[in-house]
Amino acid sequence: MSSTAAEYARRNQSRFLEELKALLRIPSISTLPEHQADCRKAAEWLVARLQRMGMEHARLVETEGHPLVYADWLHAAGKPTALMYGHYDVQPADPLEEWVSPPFEPEERNGNIYARGAVDDKGQVCAQLSALESLMAATGALPINVRVLLEGEEEVGGEGIAQFVASKPAELKADFALVSDTELFAPGLPTLCVGLRGMIYTEIDVRGAKNDLHSGQYGGAAPNPFVALAQVIARLKDENGHILIRHFYDDVEAPKEEEMAAWRTLPFDEEEYRKVEVGSPELVGEPGYSVLERTWARPTLDVHGMPGGFTGAGAKTVIPARAQAKVSMRLVPKMTPAKTFAQFKSYVLEIAPPGVDVEVRLIHSGDACVVPVDNPYIQAATRALHEVWGKETVFIRTGGSIPIVGDFARHLGLPSVMMGFGLPDDNLHAPNEKFNLENFRLGIQSLIRFLEEAGS
Amino acid sequence: MSSTAAEYARRNQSRFLEELKALLRIPSISTLPEHQADCRKAAEWLVARLQRMGMEHARLVETEGHPLVYADWLHAAGKPTALMYGHYDVQPADPLEEWVSPPFEPEERNGNIYARGAVDDKGQVCAQLSALESLMAATGALPINVRVLLEGEEEVGGEGIAQFVASKPAELKADFALVSDTELFAPGLPTLCVGLRGMIYTEIDVRGAKNDLHSGQYGGAAPNPFVALAQVIARLKDENGHILIRHFYDDVEAPKEEEMAAWRTLPFDEEEYRKVEVGSPELVGEPGYSVLERTWARPTLDVHGMPGGFTGAGAKTVIPARAQAKVSMRLVPKMTPAKTFAQFKSYVLEIAPPGVDVEVRLIHSGDACVVPVDNPYIQAATRALHEVWGKETVFIRTGGSIPIVGDFARHLGLPSVMMGFGLPDDNLHAPNEKFNLENFRLGIQSLIRFLEEAGS
Repeated sequence: MSSTAAEYARRNQSRFLEELKALLRIPSISTLPEHQADCRKAAEWLVARLQRMGMEHARLVETEGHPLVYADWLHAAGKPTALMYGHYDVQPADPLEEWVSPPFEPEERNGNIYARGAVDDKGQVCAQLSALESLMAATGALPINVRVLLEGEEEVGGEGIAQFVASKPAELKADFALVSDTELFAPGLPTLCVGLRGMIYTEIDVRGAKNDLHSGQYGGAAPNPFVALAQVIARLKDENGHILIRHFYDDVEAPKEEEMAAWRTLPFDEEEYRKVEVGSPELVGEPGYSVLERTWARPTLDVHGMPGGFTGAGAKTVIPARAQAKVSMRLVPKMTPAKTFAQFKSYVLEIAPPGVDVEVRLIHSGDACVVPVDNPYIQAATRALHEVWGKETVFIRTGGSIPIVGDFARHLGLPSVMMGFGLPDDNLHAPNEKFNLENFRLGIQSLIRFLEEAGS
Repeated sequence: MSSTAAEYARRNQSRFLEELKALLRIPSISTLPEHQADCRKAAEWLVARLQRMGMEHARLVETEGHPLVYADWLHAAGKPTALMYGHYDVQPADPLEEWVSPPFEPEERNGNIYARGAVDDKGQVCAQLSALESLMAATGALPINVRVLLEGEEEVGGEGIAQFVASKPAELKADFALVSDTELFAPGLPTLCVGLRGMIYTEIDVRGAKNDLHSGQYGGAAPNPFVALAQVIARLKDENGHILIRHFYDDVEAPKEEEMAAWRTLPFDEEEYRKVEVGSPELVGEPGYSVLERTWARPTLDVHGMPGGFTGAGAKTVIPARAQAKVSMRLVPKMTPAKTFAQFKSYVLEIAPPGVDVEVRLIHSGDACVVPVDNPYIQAATRALHEVWGKETVFIRTGGSIPIVGDFARHLGLPSVMMGFGLPDDNLHAPNEKFNLENFRLGIQSLIRFLEEAGS
């Protein structure tokens, strides 16, 4: 059953890891302007790697932000075409003091590689590239036609790739997308993600007095923007986590009962999840829904930070002139970002207390999406995973958002095979992000086998 | 009527301003550890100045924080002794980008001197020193005995001076305190402050998950500390600004009706105050109380900032592990900091939502205080102000806190004459802090005349 490409990958596994480390050393933090050059450097590194392995037309595609990376190999006459997607940008690394090893100095410990971007998404991009290299090197060809499209703005809304995809360029003509940015449901359990939540990321901006004021002299008369903002945020959800924005749940589509029944058979222990993954005194959320339902199939709302005022050590007795809140909502199928943002904005403006001016801004957004399990590429992926992992594939959703999956469907008509190899405790977006080395190895094998299956 | 000391002060006014500028150039920000050396430098500058003018025993008094400055002149046999107080430390200068001229490069514009600390409190300390120098230089003596006690931790709670005063050292034996850290009610209107609010400054610290988590994957199950904190803050006050902490108002002592009647005759236009001083769309606060009552004689609660989470530009989809709020309350006579803090803490812990751990810390506190108008030193001050300003003195309170005034009363039995020369629009604790140059001049004259009156 083992192909020559699989054998090549096994022999080259340690070099594949060194290549991943080289990419991880580039701090391509897309949201921080001071790392703009690093983003370009990561993109150029990828172009060079694609050229080296024999992919054609490898190049940067400029956008208004960080560049895309494109390459193709289209010589498998009569075979389908895959559009392989990943992203080379990463989240900021703060708080730095909580990292055991520095975020951009990848370190192997306990069978993992630790670095910002290890699993999200450089490790998975490198798994794709290692699979392609193995097929090309071992057989001189790919089993299907392949286009590679990597972006550098996934963590900041993906404006550039969205515009590129929306323009429906000939370069992106394909039969399906292969998206490597998801995770296994549990260690050793081959997993395909068939549903994603959408999102809107917003800022609420509250202004009171024209200047910062002394809280002794003016306390009792001047409006306090943080108090006003707290009053607004406190009215966004009730004590059960039910969102109070009017008509917020109107379009929510519940999963089919058979999908939810399958979820109930997954190896999931709520108390273990609370203790090991979350580590909080209790879990929160809407009563009557399981944790998987709450995080996969229910819309949610979170506050990410509240900039403004005095945040240093010690005391400053100031009534700040301005306070902000970064608030995002996760959306589920049939909800639309535009409608949800309009509902949110008008509700916030309506409940804002007197004494302050309130502005609500949309920073970015993405559609929710679901893929049918009987799609032939999902079926091919299922066979490939079974061969490599020796187990039946589980079909899950994920609470995160990959807006590009919605764009591929809407603009290019492509179903997405979301085959990823992260683990639930990989610390995405947090200190000590990691990628399991065995999953990196099996991920490469799975991708090789999937491309072979898709071409057979 | 004009003394030789007054004449000396007039001749030396421009040099007095240069001395103030020299002190303003030292960035003695007491709350920031990186400015520790600057605080000491400011203290040493003051010791040298006191020595130069002929004050005796001028020296630093070490504390666990920034040093005190002490000096005396005790050769006015049979005359009373004044304890003159001010502070050399200043607030942080952020946000720096809002300053028209740099905060530690004093600049004269429109009849004012602009710099951090111009009015709070270096300008007023320099008015004291200029008055003492004028009396010493013109007459070779002071009309009463004088002790000078300046501190460098007023903006961070005044722990050092509080301990020094509480130890009742012989150096502080006096008949009254002269505190120069207040303002005129309106330009040209001589003012004595006879009441101060107390305060407690606290931090609420909320922890949810053990790590920052991805808001897509965990949104709907992991607690959000900012949402929890917003829910707590929203329940601290009702929509009218009435504080909801149980028994919070139990000990509040209302001012006598005659004091409130006098306040109603003060030149105060609420709409003008809203537009010019505060600049917010509306004022806030308890219905049924005037602005002066709300800011002088009612306890209040403010939030100064909410550190934690993601506060940079752009978007980071994180559920922060931790959020904090800096919350202070202003207290009025008969309320006590210890009791109020206990009420606050137990209320916050009681209303905290599930899913998070909450800690409430006291950062610092100070007593409220009132001084009777018929005190002989208040009367002497009233006469001096009348001579210099040609107008009747108004007796006001201030919403701010000068904890040391309570300490002088409690430990040393001293009434405080709070004679200050700031203006309501001097931007205390805010960008573009200033001190009116004419008020600096008349302040020096008033202090000279007051010391003469107190000795007559």
